[in-house]
Amino acid sequence: MVGEIINVGTELLLGDIINTNAKFISERLANLGIDLYYQTVVGDNSERLTTILKTALKRSNLIILTGGLGPTKDDLTKEVVAKTLKIPLILNYPCYQEIKRKFEKRGIYMPRNNIKQALIPKGAKILPNPNGTAPGIYLQFNKKHIFLLPGPPKELQPMFLNSVENLLINYSDSQLTSKIIKTYGIGESGLVKLIDDLLENQSDPTIAPLAKVDGVHIRVTTKKNFSDLEKVVKIIQQRLKDHIWGYDDDQLDQLIVETMIDNKLSLSLVESCTGGAIASAITDIPGSSMVLDQSQVLYTLKSKSEFLSCNIADIPNSGIDYYLTEKLAKTILEKTGTDIGLAITGALGPTVPSGVEVGEIYISTVNNYKSITKKFNYYGTRENIKERCVMTALHQLRLLLREMCP
Amino acid sequence: MVGEIINVGTELLLGDIINTNAKFISERLANLGIDLYYQTVVGDNSERLTTILKTALKRSNLIILTGGLGPTKDDLTKEVVAKTLKIPLILNYPCYQEIKRKFEKRGIYMPRNNIKQALIPKGAKILPNPNGTAPGIYLQFNKKHIFLLPGPPKELQPMFLNSVENLLINYSDSQLTSKIIKTYGIGESGLVKLIDDLLENQSDPTIAPLAKVDGVHIRVTTKKNFSDLEKVVKIIQQRLKDHIWGYDDDQLDQLIVETMIDNKLSLSLVESCTGGAIASAITDIPGSSMVLDQSQVLYTLKSKSEFLSCNIADIPNSGIDYYLTEKLAKTILEKTGTDIGLAITGALGPTVPSGVEVGEIYISTVNNYKSITKKFNYYGTRENIKERCVMTALHQLRLLLREMCP
Repeated sequence: MVGEIINVGTELLLGDIINTNAKFISERLANLGIDLYYQTVVGDNSERLTTILKTALKRSNLIILTGGLGPTKDDLTKEVVAKTLKIPLILNYPCYQEIKRKFEKRGIYMPRNNIKQALIPKGAKILPNPNGTAPGIYLQFNKKHIFLLPGPPKELQPMFLNSVENLLINYSDSQLTSKIIKTYGIGESGLVKLIDDLLENQSDPTIAPLAKVDGVHIRVTTKKNFSDLEKVVKIIQQRLKDHIWGYDDDQLDQLIVETMIDNKLSLSLVESCTGGAIASAITDIPGSSMVLDQSQVLYTLKSKSEFLSCNIADIPNSGIDYYLTEKLAKTILEKTGTDIGLAITGALGPTVPSGVEVGEIYISTVNNYKSITKKFNYYGTRENIKERCVMTALHQLRLLLREMCP
Repeated sequence: MVGEIINVGTELLLGDIINTNAKFISERLANLGIDLYYQTVVGDNSERLTTILKTALKRSNLIILTGGLGPTKDDLTKEVVAKTLKIPLILNYPCYQEIKRKFEKRGIYMPRNNIKQALIPKGAKILPNPNGTAPGIYLQFNKKHIFLLPGPPKELQPMFLNSVENLLINYSDSQLTSKIIKTYGIGESGLVKLIDDLLENQSDPTIAPLAKVDGVHIRVTTKKNFSDLEKVVKIIQQRLKDHIWGYDDDQLDQLIVETMIDNKLSLSLVESCTGGAIASAITDIPGSSMVLDQSQVLYTLKSKSEFLSCNIADIPNSGIDYYLTEKLAKTILEKTGTDIGLAITGALGPTVPSGVEVGEIYISTVNNYKSITKKFNYYGTRENIKERCVMTALHQLRLLLREMCP
């Protein structure tokens, strides 16, 4: 079965809202093993929607339309589908009563417009919508499967999970199985070199590298059987070794917090250029209060000098410095008595002190036995560099944890 | 001019990532007054992309393609466009050198694959990409305007703002003029009540309220002339008064940093539940080092007690408390000698200490003359509550600044 999605709504074309429905449906179809070749967004325009629908009917046998089921004149998805397929719209009395009942429950008299929502193409199946007034619609037409779903995600998502998937599961050709391998410390092209032969000769399982902010991911997907996939994953593991830090849903911050909880380890930070973003990432994870004692976000020379009990004049290189960063990490470790200390200093730009480059970053991780301090050079916007700083700091922390908790 | 967007990437069809590029470009085109009729997503498949491109060339005169400019064999957007338009790809030497330089700066030898990124369709204009290796491309072909932009949003967005918009501005038919009014402290339905008559009778200018994380925004848009728009904005200003905190591109954190720089005011924070996220928001703004002295991210009872020089047993209500929060704000003000101190404590969940509710938040802002401490109750996920905490803290800071800098 080959599917496509048509999202109807001028608000999507104006960029007023983001198309979460396309992502949600795509992800669910991938899980069901149904191939999706196209997503199209079209405005609330009868002519253009008709053209898009006719194209879809030629090339796909599953068409999922979202949006345009509301009570206003702008909402024309159902009308266009009915007209294109030459199926009449008929008032469905149980639907009508259900909509009326929903208004009454909210203490509102049903506006006349909403009667439109009870018009259903003849022969269609109604998909209940407990979270809104517009029912979903499922049509079979010339061996094509056509779904009309409401636009609001809080209505669409439960309807998809509770009604659409049960209808689709019979038409899935083959369940796809995927494994995602997450790497760090190797660029996309460097990684491609190491598995060039696998990429070259791939058919099933397929292998797709994807650069993400936490490193390069590799998605291995099979339509056949799990043992084929396992073989390929094993080869990739042998090639990439310690570059691999996680799989599937693993998140770097979560991994760190869980490892530290399991090993009863505690952490304290000194953040300059990241301005609290490392602590914020760690404390996004429930349970992080068992791990993070504190982060000293020291943004001025004055605050750094007070923390180190020295004169401002003794802070080297405008506070962006290898030895200073190491000293900050060692001092927070000592002051807090935590198991690990991490400090970061750097210049995000756009303007920087003299003698310092934009993107010049120092990260130091220390425990009671060793310290690792590294210099990094990043380019890009202030935002990009900050994001990379957070990820690099978390990875440096992860590498220290790997030594401490083998 | 009629535009359309083609987003290329199998990861979009698999629902791995959300299509932020479509939203971003659509919004910018709307601002430029360029009509957008279609957004299409297609996978990394040469045949299907060719079909989609040919359809687009028939119906639109502006085509913006995103993604598929990377160094691997999967990346085929440039190749498909060149082949379809029958334009040869030629190695651009300055591009090649630029890519090589970027790798050298990171201390990496440029992999052979990346040479592919310096292949440019003959006669095309190159759009610089300071945030990645793939340059953007602009082609004019039979009065059609074709843009090829990199997929990663952090590369695409600055390229669009700095290069694409300057090229497009000449082709906009009718400049739409919009003004966005940003409010706080009033819900969407409360706000709608205050401007009910305006919403009811709107034609041009149009008026659209939209709930955002920093408060409810109202977008007023006209196709006619600016004085009509100004009249409506003035009426809304009279109705909403102090609920309005900003306009258009105003960002809350930026507004705060700028006001504080202008008035030579300094700030220090104590963050518990936000875990550094307030400091991180403020330090996103260039120049924030003139404003923020430090943030003490105190995540444990131990770190709070050390900061206040008291026993852990003296910290009330598991550290989530009205008077404790006020004391933390006063103590940081005293310790740092800054003009303003802000402290926040609260429970984000999912699990909370006994006697405390999920979403129970305290925020205290103090200066040398007064202190304001407030309790809030939020619901939602850990993430939602944290985001609302940051926004509420920034708004409370803004309200104090409004008194201090009238």
